[in-house]
Amino acid sequence: MTTPYGPVENTLSELRQLLGDRLTTSAAVREHHGHDESGFKPLPPDAVAFVKTTEEVSAIVKLCAKHKVPIIAYGTGTAIEGHVQAIHGGICIDMSMMNNILQVNQEDLDCTVQAGVTRLQLEQHLRDTGLFFPIDPGADASLGGMAATSASGTNAVRYGTMKENVLSLKVVMADGRIVQTGTRAKKSSAGYDLTHLFIGSEGTLGIITEITLRLHGLQEAISSAVCSFPTVDDAINMVILTIQSGIPIARIELLDGLMMHAINRYAKTEYAEQPHLFLEFHGSETGVVEQAEAVQELAKEFNGSDFTWATRSEDRSKLWKARHDAYPSALQLQPGTHAITTDVCVPISRLAECIRETRKDIDAASMPIVMLGHVGDGNFHLAILPHPDRPEEIDEAEALNHRLVRRALALDGTCSGEHGIGQGKITFLEEQNPEGVVVMRQIKRTLDPDNLLNPGKVLRLDE
Amino acid sequence: MTTPYGPVENTLSELRQLLGDRLTTSAAVREHHGHDESGFKPLPPDAVAFVKTTEEVSAIVKLCAKHKVPIIAYGTGTAIEGHVQAIHGGICIDMSMMNNILQVNQEDLDCTVQAGVTRLQLEQHLRDTGLFFPIDPGADASLGGMAATSASGTNAVRYGTMKENVLSLKVVMADGRIVQTGTRAKKSSAGYDLTHLFIGSEGTLGIITEITLRLHGLQEAISSAVCSFPTVDDAINMVILTIQSGIPIARIELLDGLMMHAINRYAKTEYAEQPHLFLEFHGSETGVVEQAEAVQELAKEFNGSDFTWATRSEDRSKLWKARHDAYPSALQLQPGTHAITTDVCVPISRLAECIRETRKDIDAASMPIVMLGHVGDGNFHLAILPHPDRPEEIDEAEALNHRLVRRALALDGTCSGEHGIGQGKITFLEEQNPEGVVVMRQIKRTLDPDNLLNPGKVLRLDE
Repeated sequence: MTTPYGPVENTLSELRQLLGDRLTTSAAVREHHGHDESGFKPLPPDAVAFVKTTEEVSAIVKLCAKHKVPIIAYGTGTAIEGHVQAIHGGICIDMSMMNNILQVNQEDLDCTVQAGVTRLQLEQHLRDTGLFFPIDPGADASLGGMAATSASGTNAVRYGTMKENVLSLKVVMADGRIVQTGTRAKKSSAGYDLTHLFIGSEGTLGIITEITLRLHGLQEAISSAVCSFPTVDDAINMVILTIQSGIPIARIELLDGLMMHAINRYAKTEYAEQPHLFLEFHGSETGVVEQAEAVQELAKEFNGSDFTWATRSEDRSKLWKARHDAYPSALQLQPGTHAITTDVCVPISRLAECIRETRKDIDAASMPIVMLGHVGDGNFHLAILPHPDRPEEIDEAEALNHRLVRRALALDGTCSGEHGIGQGKITFLEEQNPEGVVVMRQIKRTLDPDNLLNPGKVLRLDE
Repeated sequence: MTTPYGPVENTLSELRQLLGDRLTTSAAVREHHGHDESGFKPLPPDAVAFVKTTEEVSAIVKLCAKHKVPIIAYGTGTAIEGHVQAIHGGICIDMSMMNNILQVNQEDLDCTVQAGVTRLQLEQHLRDTGLFFPIDPGADASLGGMAATSASGTNAVRYGTMKENVLSLKVVMADGRIVQTGTRAKKSSAGYDLTHLFIGSEGTLGIITEITLRLHGLQEAISSAVCSFPTVDDAINMVILTIQSGIPIARIELLDGLMMHAINRYAKTEYAEQPHLFLEFHGSETGVVEQAEAVQELAKEFNGSDFTWATRSEDRSKLWKARHDAYPSALQLQPGTHAITTDVCVPISRLAECIRETRKDIDAASMPIVMLGHVGDGNFHLAILPHPDRPEEIDEAEALNHRLVRRALALDGTCSGEHGIGQGKITFLEEQNPEGVVVMRQIKRTLDPDNLLNPGKVLRLDE
C-alpha cells in the first residue's frame, strides 16, 4: 500500500473555520501530543484539534479524508508502545474535552461516557451509586484510550478486560461515517461483532467517541493484603495454585525484590526488599473470609510471610498506591532512562517455567530490570532500564525482550497481554500470527483504504 | 454484488477423488442437510462432504473457490433462523466426524475441540475432571455451531455467552487459508480481535474447525428450584430485583402458563399451569444458602409460591429436562406447525414494559403463543404457533414478531439475543443498525469476495 499523504495546509484552514481556537499548531502542544510514556521517538502532529462532539470528529475526519491527511486519536498519552506518535504527520484529535458522562443506568448496571472521560473521573462520579467500573490499568487513562487499546490491569483476573466490559461503542469511520456498534442489551447475536473489532484496534480502524460500559455492584466486603516470599518461584507457585483452585480472587500482583527496593526509595515505604504479592478479596463478609483463609494456607505452603491486611478504604488505597507507583519508581533506578517494557502472557501452567527462564536473562543482564505483573492472568512485565548514555544497552534490552516473546510464544502465549502493539510490537505480532496478520491487513485496507487512521501502528501495510 | 456461481459438476468429481465415499449426493442425506429446526423452506445442497480434518476443509474450500461453488458448514442442524439452507446450492460440509477432543488442560481451565464435538459429548468427557463448560443452548449442538452462532442459553446470566468463553478458533478462510485467531493465553492485546469476528458470523466469513474453550471449576454446591407466580408481571419483577441486587444467580428462566401446560402434556409432569421461574444457584455451601435465602425473600414480595428444591444431580437433571423440553412441547400444541420464534433482548430495566406490551399482542392473537426465556439477561422468546393450514396466521405471526422487534429496539434492545440472524432476521438487523450493516458488508466483501460462504445469510449483499 502506498501512502501518498496530502499536504496539511488546506486542511488546517478548513479545520480552523470549524474549530476556531480549538485547533492549535503551537509547538508546545504539538510536542506534548507527539509521544506517549514509552521511549519511542517523539513525532509531533502538524496540529492538535480539541473536539467536543462526535459530529466534530466526523467533520474533521471527512476533511482529512478529502485531503488525505493522517488522523491520530489522543486520550491521555499514557500508552507505552509508541501508540500516538505522528509518524506521517497529520492531525491529532485530542478527546480530553469530550469528558461528559452521558448516562448512568443504575438499574441496568451500565453507563455511557464520552471517550475523554478518565477512569478516576468515572470512579468519582459513581461514588454513592453502589456501582463501580473494575478495569484498572494503573494510569488515569481515558476510557476511549482504554477501549482502543483493550486495557486490563490489576482487576482483570476476576472482572475481565475491556473486552468483557464494553457493551457498545460509537465510532467514527475513516470516511467520517458514524457507527454505533451495539445496544445496551446485555447480550446480542445480531450480526458481526463490531464492538470487539474496534476494542484493541488502537485507532487504526475508527475513532471511538462514546463507550457504553458494564458496571458492577460494589462488593459487601473488600480486603487487601501483602505477603512476601523468599523467591519469585515460591510466589508464582502459590499464585498458580490459587488460580487452579478456582478461588475468585480479585487481584493478585507480583513485584520482585528490586521492584520493592525501587518502591521503598520512591514512595518512602519500608517493605522487605524481596518478592511480594499484593492481593485483594471481594465478596460477602463470609465469602471474603473463606477466600482469605484458603489463600493464606496456600501462602504458608510456599514459605510466604504472614499477611499484612488493609480493610479500611484509605488503607487499601495506600497499599495499592505503592503498586501503582511501580512504573515511576522503576524509572528512578536509572535516572534519565526510557524503560523498555515487556508484556507477555502465557497459560498459567507455563508461567513458572516462563519466569524461571526469564530470571536467568535478568541475572545476566548488564542493566537493572524489575519484574511485576498480573500473574493471576499469566501476564507479567519487565521494565528494562538501559543507561541513557549507553546505546548498546538498548540493543541488549531489545534482544532480551525478543527472547522473552519467543519463549512466551513457544509456551502457547502472546507477545502482548495488555499493552497492545503500537509501533513496538509489530514484528512480534507478525511472528506470533503471520496468517492472522494477513486477515488483519485485509480488514484495515477495506475500512481505511487510504491508511489515514493512526498509520504505522499495529500493522505493516507496505507488503 | 453479483453472484454468478459456477456449475457444481466439476467440483463433485474432484471432491470425490479427495473424499471417496465421504462425499454423498444421496437425496436423503441432502434433504437432511437442507434445513434446520425452523420452518424456513428446506433447500438441499448439491452434495454433502463428511470431513475429518481442517486440511480437508481447506482443500474443499479451495476447490469450491476455484469453481465458484457455495459452501455451507453444518453442525447438528439445530439452528432456528434458516441458517443452513443451501439457497444457491453448493457443498455442505458436515463437521460431525470432526469430533475429537484434542486436549483438556486441567491446570489452565481450557480445552481444544474439533468443531463437530457436541455439548453433551464434552460434558461427558469432562466428568471427573472437576471442570465444566457452562454454555447451554438447550439442544445438543456442536461446539463449532455454537461458536458460529454465538450461542448462549440458560447459564449465560452468570457465565456469559460463547463470546466470553472462547479463547481461540481455527478457521478456514474463503480461499482455503487456515488461520488461528488467538492463543491459550487468558488475555491478549495482540492486534485485531479475530476470535470475536468469527464468533457469531454464522459461517459467512470462515469455517470454524477447532475451538479453544474456557472451562470453569465445578462449584462446591448446586441447588435448583422452581417457583410459580400468579402473573408474568410478578415473576419478571422478581427477576429484575434479583439481578439488580447483584445476586450471582446461575440460571433464572421464565416459562408462562401456556408453556407449563404444554410441558405437562408432553413430559407428563404436574406443574401448576401458571407462570414459573426455574432457578439455579452455584457456589460454596454457605454461598448457595445465602443466595437462596435472598431470592426466596424476593419471591415472597412478588407473590411467588414456596420453592420446590432439587439438589441431587439426578433430580436437578429431571427439573431442567422439563425446561429443555419446552420447544418440542410447544410444537405439540399445534401439531404439524412450524413455530415462528422471536428472540429480542432488552436492558433489564425495560424488560417488564417490553413483556407487558407483548402480552397484549399475545392475548389478541388468533393462534397459541408460548413465552419463555432467559429473563435474567433481558432475553425472552415467543414460540408462535400458526395453524399449518392457515397461511394467514403465518402473516399474522410475522407481523407480531416485527412489532416485538420494533418494541425492543425502541427500548435500547436487540432483535436477536442468541439465535442469530440466519435468513430470518436480515431485515431486522438492517432496521436495528443500518450504519453497522454497511461495515459488516465491507468486511464480508473483503474476506469472501465471491460470496461463497453460506450465501444469503446475515447480510443482503445485492445493494
